[in-house]
Amino acid sequence: MKGFRITPPRIIALSYFGIALLGALLLELPFARHVPVSFTDSFFTSASALYVTGLSTVTTSTTWTPFGDAIIALLIQVGGAGITFVTTSFYLLMGRKISLGARMLIAEDRNFGVHGVVRLMKAILTFSFAFEGAAALLFLLYFRFVYHYTWARAIGISVFHSISAFNNAGFDLWGNSLESFTNDPFVLILTSLLIIFGGLGFIVLVELYNFRRTRILSLHTRIVLRVTAFLLVIGTIFILLFESYASMRGLSWPDKILNAWFMSVTTRTAGFDSVSVGKMKEITWFIFIILMFIGASPGSTGGGIKTTTFYTLIKTALSTARGSTEIVVGERSIPQEQGQRSLVIFLLAIAVITGCTMIDAALEPGIRLMRIVFEEVSAFGTVGLTTGITGIVNTPVKWVLIFTMYVGRIGILTLLISLVQRGQSKVKRIPERILIG
Amino acid sequence: MKGFRITPPRIIALSYFGIALLGALLLELPFARHVPVSFTDSFFTSASALYVTGLSTVTTSTTWTPFGDAIIALLIQVGGAGITFVTTSFYLLMGRKISLGARMLIAEDRNFGVHGVVRLMKAILTFSFAFEGAAALLFLLYFRFVYHYTWARAIGISVFHSISAFNNAGFDLWGNSLESFTNDPFVLILTSLLIIFGGLGFIVLVELYNFRRTRILSLHTRIVLRVTAFLLVIGTIFILLFESYASMRGLSWPDKILNAWFMSVTTRTAGFDSVSVGKMKEITWFIFIILMFIGASPGSTGGGIKTTTFYTLIKTALSTARGSTEIVVGERSIPQEQGQRSLVIFLLAIAVITGCTMIDAALEPGIRLMRIVFEEVSAFGTVGLTTGITGIVNTPVKWVLIFTMYVGRIGILTLLISLVQRGQSKVKRIPERILIG
Ligand SMILES: [K+]
Ligand SMILES: [K+]
Repeated sequence: MKGFRITPPRIIALSYFGIALLGALLLELPFARHVPVSFTDSFFTSASALYVTGLSTVTTSTTWTPFGDAIIALLIQVGGAGITFVTTSFYLLMGRKISLGARMLIAEDRNFGVHGVVRLMKAILTFSFAFEGAAALLFLLYFRFVYHYTWARAIGISVFHSISAFNNAGFDLWGNSLESFTNDPFVLILTSLLIIFGGLGFIVLVELYNFRRTRILSLHTRIVLRVTAFLLVIGTIFILLFESYASMRGLSWPDKILNAWFMSVTTRTAGFDSVSVGKMKEITWFIFIILMFIGASPGSTGGGIKTTTFYTLIKTALSTARGSTEIVVGERSIPQEQGQRSLVIFLLAIAVITGCTMIDAALEPGIRLMRIVFEEVSAFGTVGLTTGITGIVNTPVKWVLIFTMYVGRIGILTLLISLVQRGQSKVKRIPERILIG
Repeated sequence: MKGFRITPPRIIALSYFGIALLGALLLELPFARHVPVSFTDSFFTSASALYVTGLSTVTTSTTWTPFGDAIIALLIQVGGAGITFVTTSFYLLMGRKISLGARMLIAEDRNFGVHGVVRLMKAILTFSFAFEGAAALLFLLYFRFVYHYTWARAIGISVFHSISAFNNAGFDLWGNSLESFTNDPFVLILTSLLIIFGGLGFIVLVELYNFRRTRILSLHTRIVLRVTAFLLVIGTIFILLFESYASMRGLSWPDKILNAWFMSVTTRTAGFDSVSVGKMKEITWFIFIILMFIGASPGSTGGGIKTTTFYTLIKTALSTARGSTEIVVGERSIPQEQGQRSLVIFLLAIAVITGCTMIDAALEPGIRLMRIVFEEVSAFGTVGLTTGITGIVNTPVKWVLIFTMYVGRIGILTLLISLVQRGQSKVKRIPERILIG
């Protein structure tokens, strides 16, 4: 391979694939599974766990042994906190390089410079185990003493569920996600808190943790918090609006609000469900598609184009309409090149989802297109919600979905950079305007 | 209205509305219609004609008198060539201003400077009447002597159809679009040529016309021709692939190719159909949605985000992935600010279609979401194809569709600029990087 260099994006792209393959081989071991599983289904499960998606072609609870479950939990942990560390370091180092070049003032760089990467890793490990450990303990006591699970089952489920929730993976050991807990505020609220904190991103968690001392929140953190709160509330309202008298008509009003809240939280990347998505209305699917597409925050365990990208998109569009090149946020501005980057991410996300949907639709003409679109967005956003088709699609479609999850988790721009990066050309071209839209 | 200034975008935005209203009032006249028509339907028809869309809540042939038909043809002519003149001049003047400021070399500005606007108007009128006149004459002879229409009917239909096709309007006087001409290569090919030339944009037509003398094609024209050819061929192939043995299974192979070609041409903004869209597969609808979304070329009678925008999007994404800020096309480059503009147009188009689809879906829960998406994209791209729901949606949805056609024709960025333009702020903000996707 002439001129092939090992670059950080290429390391990420290759390791995401290699670890998924390793996981699939481990899941193929006889003592990892109760029943024979095709290689496609093993790889799908491994990839879905590593890319913290949670889509499943087989039922986790009945297919895998406790050893298999442990492999899945490990893949989730590696794919969540582990790879998050790699990408967050990458972000920060890249950001530093660019910013030094442009001599810009970068608040978060002061917290995480090059030597701060080790501190970041420590922070990620600390936060992960603190959140997961505390939640697992609470769940353990709750499932043992309220639901009277055996100790073994209570421990297994508590640990697995805490890891799956904090890493926004969405795998469950109940076989029907959280649909048995529709009337259980404890499980739904604790799970939703794990999901939200996991989805904020470690930089935000560190800043929040230090806030009492520093009294400083970076622009990044302020945007993440604002957009997250907005999306959670608006999602809850829309779900209440369209499903109160449909899929949730049997519930009391407190439970309607609880489940609308939970679905609003989980849609933006965790992928558990407390009410079956397959029974919801098409317009609710449409709202879910939008929320799944936006997803969680950068440097977190969640997917989608990310909250900050979504925010920057809107700001960039407005500043372009105003005839300005400055993307103003309060008394700060976001660098123009980040505005352009957010637009390109948006474009590429739409392109990937559109392309994969078309291939799937050609391969599975019997499945309604809206279900395929939903499934593809769910895979891209590493969400894991489904209208119920994951288990019935044919093998080629399963591989397309694996590809979508891969692209969704790795970040489409990172992938593209790893493929085409060649640096700036030396030849100076003559600029010529064309007419645009 | 404090500080309200009359700016070119505002003039366009207001006149698009005012003329549609005038047309609706004229269509309400008793001698314009055979049957009573609600104001909503009159306005819908007037707007659909002025915005050269061709969606219809009533059947044109049975609802309107020859006077009504004449009003519609006039609205099409004003909305096609007329408003094209306004926007093209606007493009050129705007382009000149920016380019002088940036001291860039702009090939097309040399052809159409400020004093060239009069020449542009002449060119638009000349080309319109040349194409429409020649085609009308051919159609007249054909319908008179092959189909044995009466002279009156042959003249009326030939003129109306030529205007409707060249301006990419898609209105017809047959009542079932061109579905009676599935086996008629003359009608389908002549119509497709009118549509293609109308969709290239007048600047391209002028350059092509002058090519024998100048031997120069601008970058704009080269991109338009290349993308148009690509989309026409790829569209034909996909339609053949998915519909040969479905909606077109009754046709001979030459007719299959003819109709696939015609549908590929018409989908990118004209909106006639020779094979009923309602009978096609969902995957074909999906392909149509993509083609309708892209649409025709700037400064033409067609809609969509435009061929050049589509091309610039791809080039900008690739150059971003390459870590370059230069958008290279052969030995030229497209200004970076045009790359950003194309991305913003893409974003806004998706936002408008998504928003309007959601409102429609909430207002008409009984209609399948995919049909609503199709209808909204068709309205936005001023295409006029439908899966068959235009006539059955309720009044509020009709107004949403009118809004979408309006936004689609005026150009979403132009509209936004007319609303928020306030110029650059004087305060200098501190730039602060955030983490993006
Ligand atoms: K997930
Ligand atoms: K049209």
